Amino acid sequence: MRISVCFTPQDYLRQTFVGGHSAVVIDVLRATTSISAALSNGCQQLIPVATVEEAQAKKKNYPDALLGGERQAMLIPGFDLGNSPFEYSRGVVDGKTIIMTTTNGTLALKTAEEATKVYAGGFVNAAALSDRLSAEGRDVTLLCAGTHGRFSLEDALCAGLIAERLSGQAKLGDTALAVQAMYRDFRDDLAVRVALSSHAAYLVEIGFAADVGYCLQTDVFSVVPEFCDGVITG
Amino acid sequence: MRISVCFTPQDYLRQTFVGGHSAVVIDVLRATTSISAALSNGCQQLIPVATVEEAQAKKKNYPDALLGGERQAMLIPGFDLGNSPFEYSRGVVDGKTIIMTTTNGTLALKTAEEATKVYAGGFVNAAALSDRLSAEGRDVTLLCAGTHGRFSLEDALCAGLIAERLSGQAKLGDTALAVQAMYRDFRDDLAVRVALSSHAAYLVEIGFAADVGYCLQTDVFSVVPEFCDGVITG
Repeated sequence: MRISVCFTPQDYLRQTFVGGHSAVVIDVLRATTSISAALSNGCQQLIPVATVEEAQAKKKNYPDALLGGERQAMLIPGFDLGNSPFEYSRGVVDGKTIIMTTTNGTLALKTAEEATKVYAGGFVNAAALSDRLSAEGRDVTLLCAGTHGRFSLEDALCAGLIAERLSGQAKLGDTALAVQAMYRDFRDDLAVRVALSSHAAYLVEIGFAADVGYCLQTDVFSVVPEFCDGVITG
Repeated sequence: MRISVCFTPQDYLRQTFVGGHSAVVIDVLRATTSISAALSNGCQQLIPVATVEEAQAKKKNYPDALLGGERQAMLIPGFDLGNSPFEYSRGVVDGKTIIMTTTNGTLALKTAEEATKVYAGGFVNAAALSDRLSAEGRDVTLLCAGTHGRFSLEDALCAGLIAERLSGQAKLGDTALAVQAMYRDFRDDLAVRVALSSHAAYLVEIGFAADVGYCLQTDVFSVVPEFCDGVITG
């Protein structure tokens, strides 16, 4: 069992994968945290799509579905839900289908869809993800969604937490050793120091400070979102 | 003064730079360590070129020059020097011009050549580099050469050392915060843990274990190699 990390979807596309592997898509702020929250709160399925137009077209097939997502971190006009995990509460999402489009997370999910298994998550379900990966014993690629094709500190740190959890049984490649070290240095002061990252600072600036706190909670959900045949289920 | 890090030359090419910045090319194993050793040992200048053919053609203009470099980490047939810093001793390089071609380091230098200043180095001259960058106060991009377009742990750790040294006066971007954390977690046990990296393991396997040790020595040279108009001088 080998663990490697891609810091962006572009990094993932440059890799050559031999044999089966599981991909874990990590977009801590906030798509894969919100997806984990939704499924924990009874959401039946999420359908990630690339564009706003595609979301609206898909809605015709699922008239009862909610539309969720963001552009520049804000609610999309005409959509039911933004990208804040607080919005994906049980009262809103229980039993529902959600059609979702976000800037980075959706792209990362689509990038990984040829992997043997495609999971998604963040700090909120890191233990559940690690346990599943450990039980399956397959090679793992931790795919950080990044921000507009660039490195995101919080995604790398979450990859580091998962690498740390699996390090007892898996061989860590250079990138996994790197994120493990990052996480170890950050872990005692995670919330304060992640607030220095560009994406967290941007969210705080536009009024989403509580979201950042939410997304850095560790191991609060036992759900393992799985993306298969275009649909994410728990 | 802002510090950012590119993990590969490809990452650097995707950035947009506004205003002047200094680029520091880091290929710890072994090109920029050997370049630093050569200049510390009296080498007059190094001329990095992309291909073996280009090196041989350039030799016609510099008949007294030594040819140095590697392919698959090994001496190139007909060349005077490989890529081991031990070979760049005073007795061999004092007063000489060296025409050099390496797999990753040369490419990284060429990638950065439009920066306001282009420096090169590694752990061996990290203090000298940090002092120069600090005195100039310009924005800094730490450009890790990587290995065949992929992340190299040892280059990122050296970037982390420089970021750590400059953190008192500079604003660190996400990538710089990441490598600083990596370095802090590795520093007490650097040599043992870097030996786990893929590039170090490969060098050890083909008989260059001593080179890895050499390249991880910190602050032993005061030279700051500068690449300007196609030539590297101290």
